[in-house]
Amino acid sequence: MSRRTRPAALVPGFRAAGVHCGIKKSGAPDLALIASDAPCAAAGLFTRSSVVGAPVELSRRRVRGGRARAVLVNSGISNVAMGERGRRSAEQMTAWAAESLGCRPTEVLVASTGVIGQPLPMAKLRRGIHALADALRPEGLPDAARAIMTTDTHPKLAARRVRVGDTTVHVAGIAKGVGMIEPRMATLLAFVLCDAAVAPPFLRRVLRQAADASFNRVSVDGEQSTSDTALLLANGRAGNHLLRGPGSRGAGAFAAAVGEVCEELARMLARDGEGATKLVTVRVGGARSPSEAERAARRIANSLLVKTALFGRDPNWGRILQTVGAGGVRLRLPRTRIALCGVAVFKDGTSAGPAARRRAAARLGAPDVDIEVHLGAGRSEARIWTCDLSYDYVRINAEYTT
Amino acid sequence: MSRRTRPAALVPGFRAAGVHCGIKKSGAPDLALIASDAPCAAAGLFTRSSVVGAPVELSRRRVRGGRARAVLVNSGISNVAMGERGRRSAEQMTAWAAESLGCRPTEVLVASTGVIGQPLPMAKLRRGIHALADALRPEGLPDAARAIMTTDTHPKLAARRVRVGDTTVHVAGIAKGVGMIEPRMATLLAFVLCDAAVAPPFLRRVLRQAADASFNRVSVDGEQSTSDTALLLANGRAGNHLLRGPGSRGAGAFAAAVGEVCEELARMLARDGEGATKLVTVRVGGARSPSEAERAARRIANSLLVKTALFGRDPNWGRILQTVGAGGVRLRLPRTRIALCGVAVFKDGTSAGPAARRRAAARLGAPDVDIEVHLGAGRSEARIWTCDLSYDYVRINAEYTT
Repeated sequence: MSRRTRPAALVPGFRAAGVHCGIKKSGAPDLALIASDAPCAAAGLFTRSSVVGAPVELSRRRVRGGRARAVLVNSGISNVAMGERGRRSAEQMTAWAAESLGCRPTEVLVASTGVIGQPLPMAKLRRGIHALADALRPEGLPDAARAIMTTDTHPKLAARRVRVGDTTVHVAGIAKGVGMIEPRMATLLAFVLCDAAVAPPFLRRVLRQAADASFNRVSVDGEQSTSDTALLLANGRAGNHLLRGPGSRGAGAFAAAVGEVCEELARMLARDGEGATKLVTVRVGGARSPSEAERAARRIANSLLVKTALFGRDPNWGRILQTVGAGGVRLRLPRTRIALCGVAVFKDGTSAGPAARRRAAARLGAPDVDIEVHLGAGRSEARIWTCDLSYDYVRINAEYTT
Repeated sequence: MSRRTRPAALVPGFRAAGVHCGIKKSGAPDLALIASDAPCAAAGLFTRSSVVGAPVELSRRRVRGGRARAVLVNSGISNVAMGERGRRSAEQMTAWAAESLGCRPTEVLVASTGVIGQPLPMAKLRRGIHALADALRPEGLPDAARAIMTTDTHPKLAARRVRVGDTTVHVAGIAKGVGMIEPRMATLLAFVLCDAAVAPPFLRRVLRQAADASFNRVSVDGEQSTSDTALLLANGRAGNHLLRGPGSRGAGAFAAAVGEVCEELARMLARDGEGATKLVTVRVGGARSPSEAERAARRIANSLLVKTALFGRDPNWGRILQTVGAGGVRLRLPRTRIALCGVAVFKDGTSAGPAARRRAAARLGAPDVDIEVHLGAGRSEARIWTCDLSYDYVRINAEYTT
């Protein structure tokens, strides 16, 4: 478990649970439910892939109204590319959950993650959903976090408490990675709960900003899942004055807390990338435009040559330079600077020498590694989190079965 | 050695050699020279990276005039990001070669491949260049092919003989890969020689078309080297009527022979991609536009999830579908079809079932593997060659030193 989940994985008015219903052959938990005692304001962001799963289609439609009560999630099978049968399965799952919770099916959102192209075992899901409803409890969020995992090595939770005006608000979130990860407007699966009272349009804005600075800054493998879903639910239980927009009292603090929870989850996702041995933070500065800064940072984060060099603790600035160049990003070589873990290994257009390289190599063994590149061409900057590429990445993805 | 180099690795009027001058610590050959007895028409294509090596700058400038006499190539150090010192080194190398050959330095083109950011050992190069001049011989092209290798596991040669009008023309080429490979307008290093008489503007056109259908259709790792260089030299020794353009007699046959040599080299490059266990041909059809077809094919060819699945012999059509979707490529799922090695594993919008999957899995063990995707959205198509991603890719790139 993460070190920083202590403050409050509890959000008043929410209950959660995770059970094993039988999708995963390992016996690991594979079905999660998060439910609010009262209707919530809700916001969602979804994959921008042109191939999306039935659960994404259904949840995207339902969350548009800005209201929801519960989120049902299964792992192991993603319910993608199953045609009409997939659509019926997704609807049926939410109907069973609604029946157990005593709400309307349209108040239940759904997400599925796992293998593409297999049918969901509906009889097992029905029994599992009933078991979940009985297992719901206020402190159940860690169980839900565990039940949404696929190749994740550990569950991912983050929480914050924040003052919104005179009121204490609780924010907690869970997420899962850890392959097919380079979301553009949403992510993987991430569910963030809070007890603030928030108007749905502002809630959407808070989620979009938080996701853009967190989930959308992670890349494990340059892919974007067919199932990416990020949801933010706010049940209003804290009793704060309704947050209607950025001008509302406490709105900034609230948005910052949601942002921090999302950033903490995003960093956990990158650190737990498939086969990863380290969390890598790529910072690019001195670019001609924000989009060039982001392109340079994403190229570095996705470069197999850079990622394998990091795994090998090789301070290989040449590979960083080549992948920036290959992306057509403009740089002024005599002003370009590359630092690894704070050690400048390339400056004034050439190598900083073998002593710098040795110092950088020694620091590349740490579990947290920084790459800083200054392009010397402008003032824009960008940040992306990623991980290294190890033998285990190949093992996991050569052996993880269809 | 390749099976198909037999017809004519000899091109009349050209001599070549490869020696060990001392750049590579292994003692392997690391310096090559190809020289024509007479001045040649010459055409070149180079990396489009915004970071290029000094040899690329120099050769690009010199080949613009459409004439050349020799190509000098070293492997082991790429002479990139070395500032003014790198530029002087590149010029000096060509001056020494010109001295040995009795031609002008501006008639010598140069290419360097290997580690970025280290100085070239000039004293060793001087001795090596003199040794090369003595070693030049008509049947020396395989030696040159060996001397330009970096992480290549074997040299790459291809040759054709073709009738141009009433004249027999010889075409032979060598190339090296095998990392930083996703060239857009040129490639890696490739040098193609012929004894045809060709006007330089038409020679450029022939090279561009051949490269676009061959080297530019290969991707090993989605990177583009700072040193990519493809050169085509034609010494006119065959005595054919000058080929001035596509309307000249025999021009089509000549262009086809150059194209075949380039395609054979490109396929060798993909098959010998770092750590590769198989050559993968990706064909996409039914796209809305040629650019969407190419984008889909490149996404499949560069997808870590697809490449690791191929290494694991896993007929995982779900990963193929997701990476096409993640690229925003339009498809009509109910009409989409995916075949692996001729076995349809996905059709009519869903899985073709476990029997098809088992048959495909059995065929994925072959050294040549095909992925065919029909998007059902239009009539455009594209083809890309790539390879799988194995433990050895990680080993090579985590251990290959700066």
